Amino acid sequence: MAKFIKTPVKGMCDQLPADMRLREHVLSMIKTSYSRFGFTQIETPVMEHIENLTSKQGGDNEKLIFKVMKRGADLARAIDAGKGELADSGLRYDLTLPLSRYYANNKEQLPSPFKALQIGPVFRADQPQKGRFRMFTQCDIDILGDNTNLAEIELVAATSDMLSRIFSEVGITDFTIHINDRQILRGAAKNAGFAEEDIASILISLDKYDKIGLDGIRAELTENGYDAEMVDKYLEIYQNLGDMSCAEFCRDIDAECLDPKVITNMDEIISSAKTMVADGVKIVFDPTLVRGMGYYTGPIFEVTIDDYNFSIAGGGRYDKMVGNFCGQDVPATGFSIGFERIITILKDKLENGYKIDSDNVAILIHKDVTLDKKLEIFKEAKELRQAGKTVTIQMMRKNMKQQINMLESEGYTEFKKVYND
Amino acid sequence: MAKFIKTPVKGMCDQLPADMRLREHVLSMIKTSYSRFGFTQIETPVMEHIENLTSKQGGDNEKLIFKVMKRGADLARAIDAGKGELADSGLRYDLTLPLSRYYANNKEQLPSPFKALQIGPVFRADQPQKGRFRMFTQCDIDILGDNTNLAEIELVAATSDMLSRIFSEVGITDFTIHINDRQILRGAAKNAGFAEEDIASILISLDKYDKIGLDGIRAELTENGYDAEMVDKYLEIYQNLGDMSCAEFCRDIDAECLDPKVITNMDEIISSAKTMVADGVKIVFDPTLVRGMGYYTGPIFEVTIDDYNFSIAGGGRYDKMVGNFCGQDVPATGFSIGFERIITILKDKLENGYKIDSDNVAILIHKDVTLDKKLEIFKEAKELRQAGKTVTIQMMRKNMKQQINMLESEGYTEFKKVYND
Repeated sequence: MAKFIKTPVKGMCDQLPADMRLREHVLSMIKTSYSRFGFTQIETPVMEHIENLTSKQGGDNEKLIFKVMKRGADLARAIDAGKGELADSGLRYDLTLPLSRYYANNKEQLPSPFKALQIGPVFRADQPQKGRFRMFTQCDIDILGDNTNLAEIELVAATSDMLSRIFSEVGITDFTIHINDRQILRGAAKNAGFAEEDIASILISLDKYDKIGLDGIRAELTENGYDAEMVDKYLEIYQNLGDMSCAEFCRDIDAECLDPKVITNMDEIISSAKTMVADGVKIVFDPTLVRGMGYYTGPIFEVTIDDYNFSIAGGGRYDKMVGNFCGQDVPATGFSIGFERIITILKDKLENGYKIDSDNVAILIHKDVTLDKKLEIFKEAKELRQAGKTVTIQMMRKNMKQQINMLESEGYTEFKKVYND
Repeated sequence: MAKFIKTPVKGMCDQLPADMRLREHVLSMIKTSYSRFGFTQIETPVMEHIENLTSKQGGDNEKLIFKVMKRGADLARAIDAGKGELADSGLRYDLTLPLSRYYANNKEQLPSPFKALQIGPVFRADQPQKGRFRMFTQCDIDILGDNTNLAEIELVAATSDMLSRIFSEVGITDFTIHINDRQILRGAAKNAGFAEEDIASILISLDKYDKIGLDGIRAELTENGYDAEMVDKYLEIYQNLGDMSCAEFCRDIDAECLDPKVITNMDEIISSAKTMVADGVKIVFDPTLVRGMGYYTGPIFEVTIDDYNFSIAGGGRYDKMVGNFCGQDVPATGFSIGFERIITILKDKLENGYKIDSDNVAILIHKDVTLDKKLEIFKEAKELRQAGKTVTIQMMRKNMKQQINMLESEGYTEFKKVYND
């Protein structure tokens, strides 16, 4: 007798009907909202070549790849070879890498600029914990082929529009879009005297600003062997930030370390986005925003909701990545939505679950009802359904009260009991 | 320099925007149509335990599993052990096995009967060929916990309603739902004198009826060593089928080989389903319908369209499978829709691709336009989008004619050119 396992694979979820209704509702709002901004849906395979997944585009996610084994003779050869690579593909850990490959593969058939919406599952062999899954839905919008800041403005406007629509349904109207620029982060570090090759490591420390504060960052940087005076100069600019504008923050950064155009660009993005977002949405310049992924080259953004200590969306400009596939640089900006986090917040706020207004009809047929009578009932059900009603048909059970209770919990409000005349 | 691969993994597809629009349109019709019949959506993980995938529920599909490798210490141990199993999970090859596991895992939280709609990708390491992919979308409806023929009737009615809606958009109104019963197939074989253990092999031959005809089946069965007289007696009943009813076909099968209730049941299903289907949909008893999967226990069905030599949907009753997970039998019926085949047919009929009626606005901004003027435009765009219009904003290019042509091909019909006043 084969051994069956009832539970899902570790870290993955079965979606129950009520959860699924909420997910589908949110997905449909996301699609409608983004489509108004001209984003068109695309789909890429869940599996990717192992060469692409391990090409240093994915940062730490490359350590979390679910590898898919070679098959047949290929696998036999790899096993015989001893140290041979046993996998030739893997499950994607994000949607950005597949999008870059997709664009390179299909660019002749795509408009330019190309505004893409991609929704689908991604996989990470992470240690599962509350709210962190091994398979989860990601939802990305990207604009490829636009080197102007219209791309950033549209991404920020579209995402805030989408979030406003979804969250206003549960009474959340206040959220904040944090914006920064990788070049400002680099400029500030260079201005303090740090060498180009140290910047990545310094930004890893700055990224902990919310958790360990400036003192923590100072301790970490000196511990990592950086010159204390240089560290002090670097962190001075991050003191007393308050509601500082980008221009104010960059005042003391030398033009040789930071092209002034970057500052103008940031101001344009922020003032333009402000004209498009809904009331209650704050757009702030946030000089401590780093975003982990190394592939960002320009403006970066992140969205937070006041009562939650995690970001629900993030993105930025990544002008170099698509070029790895195309052979020539393609300007690119993207915004990735934390779909599962949004669902978590909505479930948190919807005490009694997500309900759909409906008048659903349940028809209960007594066991003695003749076939002729049943045929009449079926015709009636057909007409009700054609009129747009949800109709389910069941045989009447001995404990009809229990049966009706169950149907009510499924959302049925009208009950039609059928007996022989 | 890492090696990048532009094309998708072998046998898998990048979905272009136009294709995706059609797929999304069809998916939304499927969801609406099935929801009127009381089916609720669920989702199961793409990955399944290797023990479940290889538990002999999947027939030949078990040879086509994409196996996912163990990770970390587990993998190292398996490699050290030499002949150890290197995979602990795999990608699902259908949606029926995950549904059975899902029901066993969640049945306390599910209504009974449970009407489930599941849509998602499945994976088969098959040799790719035209119309056969290694990753494709499946769409299944199932009713678990209903041992009456209401389950079959609702499945057939729901599926024919859904197909009618989708195909009527491209002018296809004629399709046929073929119905048979596994017990009739078994009864006919037993009636000819075949032993219980030979039935599976005999049905493999009968399943080729459309391809090799009765003479071919006769040759194959005798070649396989079955008694020629028995084979003749067996095939006699399949002569001159015409538009035979179930009762007519079963006339000569002994009641000891076939419970007469099976015949009444079949008549009830067919006459009931006929009252619910749209005009043009034929429902026929088809005694040569076998359906490959060994797990079917009762009525089976398949849908064909006249001009295409493949079935576009199929299913049946499988009362034993869920019990493998639950420990007790759960009556189950399911209908699996060949989503990719439906898309193939629609694309075939839609010469110019799938178009959406829309009045989409493209705003083209001249490069010299001031920020103040841009902010006005952004406000206007916000209002248009709030009114439900699709709006895209681009910087005006030197070759504006080409730019507008491209936008027109994307479905934009209204163009607003913005210069400085």
